[in-house]
Amino acid sequence: MEIKSGSVVAMAGGVGGAKLAHGLYAQANDRDLTVIVNTADDFELHGLHISPDLDTVLYTLAGVANPETGWGIAGDTFATMSALARLGGADWFRLGDQDFATHIRRTQRLREGATLGEVTAEFSRALGVLDTTAIVPMTDDPVATLVETDDGLLDFQSYFVRRQHADRVLSVRFSGIEAATLAPRAKQALTAASVIVLCPSNPIVSIGPILALSGTTDALSSANAPIVAVSPIIGGQALKGPADHMLASLGHHVSALGVATIYRHFLSGMVIDDADAHLARPIGRLGMSVLVTDTIMRSELDRRRLATEVLEFAGALRR
Amino acid sequence: MEIKSGSVVAMAGGVGGAKLAHGLYAQANDRDLTVIVNTADDFELHGLHISPDLDTVLYTLAGVANPETGWGIAGDTFATMSALARLGGADWFRLGDQDFATHIRRTQRLREGATLGEVTAEFSRALGVLDTTAIVPMTDDPVATLVETDDGLLDFQSYFVRRQHADRVLSVRFSGIEAATLAPRAKQALTAASVIVLCPSNPIVSIGPILALSGTTDALSSANAPIVAVSPIIGGQALKGPADHMLASLGHHVSALGVATIYRHFLSGMVIDDADAHLARPIGRLGMSVLVTDTIMRSELDRRRLATEVLEFAGALRR
Repeated sequence: MEIKSGSVVAMAGGVGGAKLAHGLYAQANDRDLTVIVNTADDFELHGLHISPDLDTVLYTLAGVANPETGWGIAGDTFATMSALARLGGADWFRLGDQDFATHIRRTQRLREGATLGEVTAEFSRALGVLDTTAIVPMTDDPVATLVETDDGLLDFQSYFVRRQHADRVLSVRFSGIEAATLAPRAKQALTAASVIVLCPSNPIVSIGPILALSGTTDALSSANAPIVAVSPIIGGQALKGPADHMLASLGHHVSALGVATIYRHFLSGMVIDDADAHLARPIGRLGMSVLVTDTIMRSELDRRRLATEVLEFAGALRR
Repeated sequence: MEIKSGSVVAMAGGVGGAKLAHGLYAQANDRDLTVIVNTADDFELHGLHISPDLDTVLYTLAGVANPETGWGIAGDTFATMSALARLGGADWFRLGDQDFATHIRRTQRLREGATLGEVTAEFSRALGVLDTTAIVPMTDDPVATLVETDDGLLDFQSYFVRRQHADRVLSVRFSGIEAATLAPRAKQALTAASVIVLCPSNPIVSIGPILALSGTTDALSSANAPIVAVSPIIGGQALKGPADHMLASLGHHVSALGVATIYRHFLSGMVIDDADAHLARPIGRLGMSVLVTDTIMRSELDRRRLATEVLEFAGALRR
């Protein structure tokens, strides 16, 4: 295929988003790629600043991600974690020994005054991510997803990992979002983009915070590029994580149609799975083009194939 | 042997001191043991608070110390360190994966407002150190050993580890010592002691800072217990570390006699190696008793034997 020049911008959260970002990374060829990553589920543990989505994207693009879990580093060991537990540290959030290095170094650099964006750029270079690709935290400002449940307000990782997203979600809010602005580099990338891709990440807690930042809506409105999204919901279910339960709790359709509805104000095209072919027509009625294809990324080949199809689909669209 | 009741207090720095402290720990039987540990070589690395001497004593008493090096944890791995180096972190100070847990947790607890003494007590309990034994940081205040060399002033670990104590030492100073006071628990232990033992640690940079603290000299003067020291210099050489070069540079006799001279104002007895038997008489002339024995601790049995001899020797002394 021929991909026309111009930069590609992706918005991503964790594992699913990172997979498609990886496909785009492989298929962008000589085009610049900017991956704008959710940081609203960043948190502090053991006194260290942990950025789960950033690290998942970083490790995935660097080719060191654990292929079984999707997060963490392949072959990582857990000696530090075990020793920490022995000393009274929390062990509900699994952190590998190599992974700890990322958190230790990030925390040190942030305390030294570096921004999260600067640290992420340093790590990308250190791990050999191509310099045509920028992994950009959505903001350098602190934002924290809070989940309201029947048991009260939980910080995101307590809800997601500690309690294994078993709680009913009454509402979701992003603490700090009013004061947070879209990272300048992310804004520039959106403005210069030839394609903008919303990866198959949770629309509420992964893509949601990026969209909620001051500056994102304006940047999307003024962007000339087609904006396409890949549905993280297939056959009414999330492949991974609580997106389905969350959508249902918050009164959305638990389907690609529900996701397209959330994004309808700015979306040029929606990519849905073959299993959801019957939703192509109702999604089309929202005023966007629809691509029906196999969206499940089992292998690296799948990632690249889906990325190519998404780029081709978007390339044929006009806003 | 019969050890009379009453508590044992030891002052210690790193590896050599920890070995004798371990012997005392094994031989103190039902007596309380307090090990007052140098913290002037504490430093920050990777944004973490590292207490090399405290950890060496802690790991040694807990039975998890690396028997080859004397520092670090037996069987520890180095995945975090390697990953940190890849991300641009310093790797001249070797830290194992389990060891990192200690520094991470300590840093977190200190940031939460705990004192170094409280954190050390938590770690001792967690690692199963007998509760009749207290490992007490000499002070909760920050003190930093600075070494003046021909290349300028170096922080202690830069001198000791990074540059492998190859520099000529022009002077040594303890930054912060004027504002630092002997930890209350250490002071109480010295007052209640039946025996006070200065372990075979570097008299300048390990025992020196403890003695230089506000409160130590008074506590030693008012203590009723005999005070004995074990020479870290045998046959004119330090078994480990730069004590010999340091003594020479600073104009001291590089011998057990030199060490005894430094301690002469408060010492009741000096324990020297068989190799230094000829120094018994000149040391005696300083006004103290002398025990000549095998002071090299090759095995755990050696540690216990030497501890027993030291306790017996001290028990027979009157101040």
